[in-house]
Amino acid sequence: MLTKEFIQSEIVQTVNQVRRKNPMAGSITNTVTINFVANAQLAVGGSAAMVYLPDEAELLAKAGEAMYINVGTLLPIYETTLPLVANTLYETKKHWVLDPVAVGIGKMRTDLLKQFKNYKPSVVRGNASEIIALASLWQLIDNIEESNVRGVDSTDSVSSAKEAAIKIAQWTNGAVAVSGEIDLITDGKTIVRSYGGSDFLQKITGAGCSLAGITAIYLTESTPFIAALTATNAYNVAGKIAEANVEGPASFQQCFLDQLYQASAEQIANNQIKIMEV
Amino acid sequence: MLTKEFIQSEIVQTVNQVRRKNPMAGSITNTVTINFVANAQLAVGGSAAMVYLPDEAELLAKAGEAMYINVGTLLPIYETTLPLVANTLYETKKHWVLDPVAVGIGKMRTDLLKQFKNYKPSVVRGNASEIIALASLWQLIDNIEESNVRGVDSTDSVSSAKEAAIKIAQWTNGAVAVSGEIDLITDGKTIVRSYGGSDFLQKITGAGCSLAGITAIYLTESTPFIAALTATNAYNVAGKIAEANVEGPASFQQCFLDQLYQASAEQIANNQIKIMEV
Amino acid sequence: MLTKEFIQSEIVQTVNQVRRKNPMAGSITNTVTINFVANAQLAVGGSAAMVYLPDEAELLAKAGEAMYINVGTLLPIYETTLPLVANTLYETKKHWVLDPVAVGIGKMRTDLLKQFKNYKPSVVRGNASEIIALASLWQLIDNIEESNVRGVDSTDSVSSAKEAAIKIAQWTNGAVAVSGEIDLITDGKTIVRSYGGSDFLQKITGAGCSLAGITAIYLTESTPFIAALTATNAYNVAGKIAEANVEGPASFQQCFLDQLYQASAEQIANNQIKIMEV
Repeated sequence: MLTKEFIQSEIVQTVNQVRRKNPMAGSITNTVTINFVANAQLAVGGSAAMVYLPDEAELLAKAGEAMYINVGTLLPIYETTLPLVANTLYETKKHWVLDPVAVGIGKMRTDLLKQFKNYKPSVVRGNASEIIALASLWQLIDNIEESNVRGVDSTDSVSSAKEAAIKIAQWTNGAVAVSGEIDLITDGKTIVRSYGGSDFLQKITGAGCSLAGITAIYLTESTPFIAALTATNAYNVAGKIAEANVEGPASFQQCFLDQLYQASAEQIANNQIKIMEV
Repeated sequence: MLTKEFIQSEIVQTVNQVRRKNPMAGSITNTVTINFVANAQLAVGGSAAMVYLPDEAELLAKAGEAMYINVGTLLPIYETTLPLVANTLYETKKHWVLDPVAVGIGKMRTDLLKQFKNYKPSVVRGNASEIIALASLWQLIDNIEESNVRGVDSTDSVSSAKEAAIKIAQWTNGAVAVSGEIDLITDGKTIVRSYGGSDFLQKITGAGCSLAGITAIYLTESTPFIAALTATNAYNVAGKIAEANVEGPASFQQCFLDQLYQASAEQIANNQIKIMEV
Repeated sequence: MLTKEFIQSEIVQTVNQVRRKNPMAGSITNTVTINFVANAQLAVGGSAAMVYLPDEAELLAKAGEAMYINVGTLLPIYETTLPLVANTLYETKKHWVLDPVAVGIGKMRTDLLKQFKNYKPSVVRGNASEIIALASLWQLIDNIEESNVRGVDSTDSVSSAKEAAIKIAQWTNGAVAVSGEIDLITDGKTIVRSYGGSDFLQKITGAGCSLAGITAIYLTESTPFIAALTATNAYNVAGKIAEANVEGPASFQQCFLDQLYQASAEQIANNQIKIMEV
């Protein structure tokens, strides 16, 4: 089993490398939270670039060190762009993060997410309902009777998504992050629970989207598992500090982004976690 | 005539029910202010979901308790999406809010807004120029000689839109909210003027868009008239408090969202209003 | 050579006229920073209107006093919209600002930017890498061997873009603003370096986009050269003040927008500049 010392040392290195190198991760992401994603990526020391067109996405996939695909607000062009970019990432062995927002809603989303099974995203990040629905769509767990996905909100607990998360990680040979009250990150062998954060993260739009966005930044400098855990820990540290200083969701969001920028690598590495074997 | 006591009691109940139930209202809205709309909906206790594609919009219309359509930054796909979703809302008797942003500009916008007449939006929210132009487009008032709509700004006073607002509300059997220095809300029988707010609401983009967005949230728990008034009162309370505490438009927007989150149901219900019969 | 006194007097007049008249400048701009662009335009006293569709863009070009085109996140419809609007602006002798974001990436972007050479944007604003790449694409300087554009970031120094900026300004008979540590503004005859700003402007997304957006607002009341310089000075004043008061990029962005709103015409005019002849 991975030791806490090893994990913490990897996190420190990842955070510091990103701040030193300013790596770019391109994104194809929804219009609701696209600004928050970019600003979070910049706050942790990365560089952002968002596109919609197929050839631009292909160029970003080839030029960048990692990429982020979020299926939030699909546009017609995504039907061409997303399979092309996912295939390019797979063929060129580039790491990428998938946020399967609102999996189960609409034909294009379902078709795209089905195709992504074979392009093996390095990290899948979602809430519990999304992770369960994706594992079911990919036929990695028994079909769930009825989708519990309600728009962008989760109606399932993080623990209930544990099996789904493990199965997805084992399939992709990558990592899965289930966001919720106590986050769960797994690479299919080890499970880490990450504590902290804030209820205010439910009261601003894009907390999940931007968490996945900074995961793509960290993925340029570490393994999928460490990238997902580093991002989650960073969110839990920044969320906890911000909550203590604010009067509502908007001041929380501002303080949260400032804390993402300020938090030391050691603070992020030392966030409370619990390590288990699968 | 509706008494102030009745109205205030309805507002208190609406605000509290929304905070208890966390209802979702889907939106098709412009890319400029989409993030502000979602965060305002979350701040008052609702849940947001934005889409562009026809089948996704249809699903949201059927699954949600109310919906919001804002014609701000039209994309080509809206030509298919908007008539489908408006028709679905009408056929399934779902409440919905229309924000006729920049009515009069462009062929698609004009065609769509003309069609919406028959799909009877439960609440129409706009500035005075937009309400006058929409009533004229719908041939509910005499044709105005020339559109006074200048982009997203109003060049007419709220009072000058009174007849147009009443005519629209009587046609839809819903409510109309005219935003301006002193807001006007009517269901075609009663008129309420709501006081408060802040000049800073003109200095940030999306004050009107997000007001219509939270109207859709309140519409899940009340009548069109009470939903429109609750939303307007909430904005006037939050705006007034925020203005006293800030140094510019950006700090105003943050404080305003925090106040939307913090304001009590009683504060919102007790905002200064004036009730008249049509 | 233009004297500092003349320049400062023009800046004071431009800032005050904009605040008095609330002029509108329409924009076609990317979805990442569209909200920031609009709020910056409002903060300095202007009015914003964003569109995507060809006929709406044409109407805005004809109705507005200046326009802003940013090629950040291209959508398929831009292939029709952008040449139409650029041609309309040129034919009707309207001033417009071009932000050639990520020039060199993708076929549509390259095709559009090539076409824009003949429509002579009044102001081109970009980072050093973008200005060099655009001058090369327009064959105004010798072909650079390889594009140094990395997504939206510059890898070249402002000084290295001096020749490219002068050549573009001489071609358009307008002005060019190169953003960087010390900004450079030229009309092809005079060069002004503008000091101030903040490193935090690199840590938020959209500093360049919104700078170009307010340039379009100032362009409604002044020459391209004065508009570009007024906007740059305003950014340098607001950035410098904001930096002294904040704890991270998000609080910086808020304070920065508040300062754009608060800064006096004299503060903006008196920002440290250095004037040289070409």
